[in-house]
Amino acid sequence: MAPQTSLEPFVNPQSVALIGVSSRTGPGAFNVLEQMMGTGYKGKIYPVNPKGGVILDVPVYRSVLEIDAPVDLAVISTPRAAVPGVVEQCVAKSIRAVVIITQGFSDASDEEGLRLHREILAAIEGTETMVVGPNTLGVVNTFINFNTSFITFDTTPLPVGVVCQSGVFLAASGDFSGGIGIGIDTGNTADVGFTRCLEYLAANPQIEIINLHMEGLRDGRRFLETARRVTPHKPVLVLKTGSSEEGARAAGSHSGSMAGEDAVFSAAFAQSGIIRVDDPGFMADLNRTFITYREMRGNRVAVITISGGAGIMAVDAAGKYGLQTARFSPKAMTALEEVFPHWMHPDNPADIWPAGMAKGYREITALALDQILSDEAVDAVLCITPAYLDPDTDPLNIIGLIGDVAARHRHKPTAAWIFGPHKHKYCAMFAETGLVVAYGTPDSAMYCLSQFHRYHSQIKNVRFPAFEPPRNVDQNRVRDTMAAGRDAGLTALNEEALDIIEAYGIPAVRRVMADSPDSAARAAESIGFPVAMKIASPDVPHKSDVGGIKLNICSAGDAALAFKEITAKVRERIPDARVNGVQLQTQVSGGTEVILGGRWDPQFGPVLVYGLGGIFTELMRDVSFRVAPVTRAEALAMIGETRSHKILAGARGREPGDIDALADCLVRLGALLQDHPAIAEVDINPLLVTPRGCLALDALIVPG
Amino acid sequence: MAPQTSLEPFVNPQSVALIGVSSRTGPGAFNVLEQMMGTGYKGKIYPVNPKGGVILDVPVYRSVLEIDAPVDLAVISTPRAAVPGVVEQCVAKSIRAVVIITQGFSDASDEEGLRLHREILAAIEGTETMVVGPNTLGVVNTFINFNTSFITFDTTPLPVGVVCQSGVFLAASGDFSGGIGIGIDTGNTADVGFTRCLEYLAANPQIEIINLHMEGLRDGRRFLETARRVTPHKPVLVLKTGSSEEGARAAGSHSGSMAGEDAVFSAAFAQSGIIRVDDPGFMADLNRTFITYREMRGNRVAVITISGGAGIMAVDAAGKYGLQTARFSPKAMTALEEVFPHWMHPDNPADIWPAGMAKGYREITALALDQILSDEAVDAVLCITPAYLDPDTDPLNIIGLIGDVAARHRHKPTAAWIFGPHKHKYCAMFAETGLVVAYGTPDSAMYCLSQFHRYHSQIKNVRFPAFEPPRNVDQNRVRDTMAAGRDAGLTALNEEALDIIEAYGIPAVRRVMADSPDSAARAAESIGFPVAMKIASPDVPHKSDVGGIKLNICSAGDAALAFKEITAKVRERIPDARVNGVQLQTQVSGGTEVILGGRWDPQFGPVLVYGLGGIFTELMRDVSFRVAPVTRAEALAMIGETRSHKILAGARGREPGDIDALADCLVRLGALLQDHPAIAEVDINPLLVTPRGCLALDALIVPG
Repeated sequence: MAPQTSLEPFVNPQSVALIGVSSRTGPGAFNVLEQMMGTGYKGKIYPVNPKGGVILDVPVYRSVLEIDAPVDLAVISTPRAAVPGVVEQCVAKSIRAVVIITQGFSDASDEEGLRLHREILAAIEGTETMVVGPNTLGVVNTFINFNTSFITFDTTPLPVGVVCQSGVFLAASGDFSGGIGIGIDTGNTADVGFTRCLEYLAANPQIEIINLHMEGLRDGRRFLETARRVTPHKPVLVLKTGSSEEGARAAGSHSGSMAGEDAVFSAAFAQSGIIRVDDPGFMADLNRTFITYREMRGNRVAVITISGGAGIMAVDAAGKYGLQTARFSPKAMTALEEVFPHWMHPDNPADIWPAGMAKGYREITALALDQILSDEAVDAVLCITPAYLDPDTDPLNIIGLIGDVAARHRHKPTAAWIFGPHKHKYCAMFAETGLVVAYGTPDSAMYCLSQFHRYHSQIKNVRFPAFEPPRNVDQNRVRDTMAAGRDAGLTALNEEALDIIEAYGIPAVRRVMADSPDSAARAAESIGFPVAMKIASPDVPHKSDVGGIKLNICSAGDAALAFKEITAKVRERIPDARVNGVQLQTQVSGGTEVILGGRWDPQFGPVLVYGLGGIFTELMRDVSFRVAPVTRAEALAMIGETRSHKILAGARGREPGDIDALADCLVRLGALLQDHPAIAEVDINPLLVTPRGCLALDALIVPG
Repeated sequence: MAPQTSLEPFVNPQSVALIGVSSRTGPGAFNVLEQMMGTGYKGKIYPVNPKGGVILDVPVYRSVLEIDAPVDLAVISTPRAAVPGVVEQCVAKSIRAVVIITQGFSDASDEEGLRLHREILAAIEGTETMVVGPNTLGVVNTFINFNTSFITFDTTPLPVGVVCQSGVFLAASGDFSGGIGIGIDTGNTADVGFTRCLEYLAANPQIEIINLHMEGLRDGRRFLETARRVTPHKPVLVLKTGSSEEGARAAGSHSGSMAGEDAVFSAAFAQSGIIRVDDPGFMADLNRTFITYREMRGNRVAVITISGGAGIMAVDAAGKYGLQTARFSPKAMTALEEVFPHWMHPDNPADIWPAGMAKGYREITALALDQILSDEAVDAVLCITPAYLDPDTDPLNIIGLIGDVAARHRHKPTAAWIFGPHKHKYCAMFAETGLVVAYGTPDSAMYCLSQFHRYHSQIKNVRFPAFEPPRNVDQNRVRDTMAAGRDAGLTALNEEALDIIEAYGIPAVRRVMADSPDSAARAAESIGFPVAMKIASPDVPHKSDVGGIKLNICSAGDAALAFKEITAKVRERIPDARVNGVQLQTQVSGGTEVILGGRWDPQFGPVLVYGLGGIFTELMRDVSFRVAPVTRAEALAMIGETRSHKILAGARGREPGDIDALADCLVRLGALLQDHPAIAEVDINPLLVTPRGCLALDALIVPG
């Protein structure tokens, strides 16, 4: 159906038909009806089974078509062969939302599964009916106690929207998200996918944060564009699984999704303000962080601790995630000095144990926290608090006290790190304050604060700059050259590739084609010595292997000689090769060699790759990716995030490379890929970055 | 006291004197006597306080000297000024073990603290008395319910020995180690430190695994040697805090310890078979892993899952930690195919949900687990198991069943990853089996299995090879050259540095010193062209800046001219410079430039650094460290662990560098540093690695 249509009938149905309900009930029966009746859902439930009868005291319809009332949502758990027919009935009954729990479609390893998959899509084609699944637990909405699953699980209500491709992220939402508000398991993602779910959750006022558990993606570009509209207003966190090679293989066989190249996903997430969570253990804490705190204006954290050793761990964690350890201002220092023992200089981490022993642990904690939160040099505070005893009887219980101080400083996160045998109860009591997040490890605390700060400083309310197509591009020249190549049946363009990128304003080395020794001599004189010469032939992929390249030619006579030698050698080695002549080009030295590449990604369309030349790209894999086209700022970020960027920036006394010109080349290459889908792959290798400008020395284009 | 003396009186005291006990008791009083009486410790307890009287119905001695029975251990919590005097009394009373809880010694920021610290050391100097602390919670021994702390905390008995510098690792041992057997908090580590504790715990039969929580170390070399004897027999895990710059600063002010360069610690741990745990959250799970499993013969893991999505996460985690995803052998495949639905091809991860739905979840789990554990292509299995319901009533509870199968395959770890709201109860029930470790995340499971396999394949029962000093070294030449430099008051040796490393068998470029234009001309002819020439002067640190270097000299005449020019320019720019002449050396080209360095580390003594030349070391920080001296195998490992090692190995069609010769240079440089403590720092930059041999082109030595 039309992609913009709201998913409301999935999430807030007034009436549900459960098609394929079994008569088996009780533990181990996995009966959808029994489960749904047990959740407290208030809508109408119509069980459907061709056998009819009564299940759990509810009369059973033989078909959805027999139900004499409107049905918002159908949940199908029949055997797989029956599913397409049932979907057709749902369409006939004008049911807009269909969840298919049944497995064995694009997730199956047989042909039959794929055929049934196509039949389902054919059944809804052009209709108002949408499908979630197949191979799904369906939908959870804790706001109305609604859950289409066949297994019983607890859900903790939280203003978090979850989209996933595996039911485990709904069933164990406590582990993966810390709770759930609305959850959609798209399963095989035959119809409804990430983009539509993201649009829906973005517009749903009950949802404050969106979690995506992604194995693969089909329409990456539309997803990216949607995400760019959502993330400035609602944080979107993604856990992308299948990041390893084996994981990608497993993801492919699990939901039939394309896992794609992981680095491209990372780039796309970064380009659209989505926060990628690498450690699944951090997602739930990050949700709590976003729900609890209002803002964080800088990245300077203070630590208040009862243990020096724990304080060091917290500082290590802060450094790991790019947070600064705050330097207290004189006012805060003076206040702390007044209560610290005379032999102990206050510092960050502030070890308040000695002061607490002397002057009362509760009093000193409250005083230190208030002073430090009042310090302009501090943006957030982590309180390291033990849970050795039951909080109900623990004399060191300072939950209420920390909450009271935190309530007076709502513009700065007050966080806690709890350890000890009673930490779960302590954490739950901190959660009840609604003011303080209690983390289980210093890593989790500092990671979450760093991401929270990143969201507020870089993503929230940010407008993604629109792409401005570069000027002075010659689209026709590209089209004509590509067409000529296609007509000639070329599988790769080499000499023509420099023409094509030049048409998009990427400077290329001066070069002339010669068709005789004489013209080679003239050409050499016209472009200036030294000159490099190489065979121009679509049939000689590895030119140097067959003597098709000569370097360091310093006179017209040598150029004429080289023409003869090159053509003779190629004719000798590859007698059938079509030879278009010999290309001469200025032999440029100096500068830094980089590689600019682009290719058509199955998920995201045109994608750019950048890396320093030679070993850096090949051996050190020091490359960066972006979905094309890129703005100038994105191009600069792309260059800056390689480890080797300092070499370009002028390390070791070298003159810095012209990074502005390099960024311009990336912008232009991205536009070329975007404008010309006929280009499947392009490589500029090397592009020479000099102190004043760039120059492409060689390029290759593979047509799509 | 003598370092070898056992710590037995700390850990298993028959009688304890508590010196400085307060009369305040009850919640918030932090009374050591009250705490110790509450733990169930069966030994004698003698409270001591100059005021005398009775506390908690126990008569109080006015001094330890008044106690008319032997005392094994004294626990001091008096004000700091009184501590040295009390320690003297303990010595007089022949108390062998003293714990000083009091703070404010080397941890203090005042001079008085350091003075008291020295007085304590003076009091025990040459006696049988040992001190743990000051600034410590002291000792925990759960086997006898003994605990010297002033705070009450739970301890779960486990055969784990813990040594730490911060009491939090004892008080929250459940979080940090998953439990504790014997724990020693060395606090400021004035006397008893890591080495002695390691020796003691290694010999203690109640302890199976040792955990170190280390902020800094004083006698790194002795620690390393001790660890090498221990780790092949007992796993030693270390959490090194203060790894960040800020963390190191905090560690320094916390316990007055030297945090040192983190990479050197990593190297030392690796060289002695200590497993460094980077994520504090993994330590407890790793302890459980070592306690539960017997062995793991290879690194191929299988995953059995009820969720495809969770299976992918597990495979991602396996890849992250270097484990292989097992390929099932035909026998196991056939067995799985028989129970899987016909549309589902068995694979690893094995998603058993569809088969379980059709044929019984419990039956299929047991069958699949047994078949997969029987598969010769599998070394360990992770079962992904939900905890949606209370295990006491959950029809999916398969704890006993997994345990039964695991019991039949004790040579392969059977692990579980549990999620869902009842996971803690599930984990506890799995723990009761004593056969299966239940992990909270796939990351933790795969990390622990990878480290367990690493221990069994690389550390257990391994004999660390003894260092064999290299042959053909000329110690006298080094000593003489260093002495000459010292006599001349040189702060850095340059020309002499090549002589010194050459004396240890590291090949250096051919070079001759010239003292006149004529001798320069003769020298140039004797060593062969092209020649490089540079000023030889201890007063010209940056030779090229003052025209003190000339390259590409191709004739005797040019050499004579260059001599004149170089000496003239240097005299003009630095008129007072002592000029020893001009050094000529063969100008070598080709090969790969690397940097070999060494320096005296405050913790570990001589340390080697290796990296590829230029940008790799300076910009990419692609370097490796080892405590010197190193064996040939260690030298090879050092080279191999840099990211850039593929360049040396012959990437991109280059001839491979002579890595054997490079390793030999590292071995020799290590021996040089070891034999000659007068060398504080040495840098060979560059060392040219050619396909046949290495050649040092330049070197610098800083005397100590």
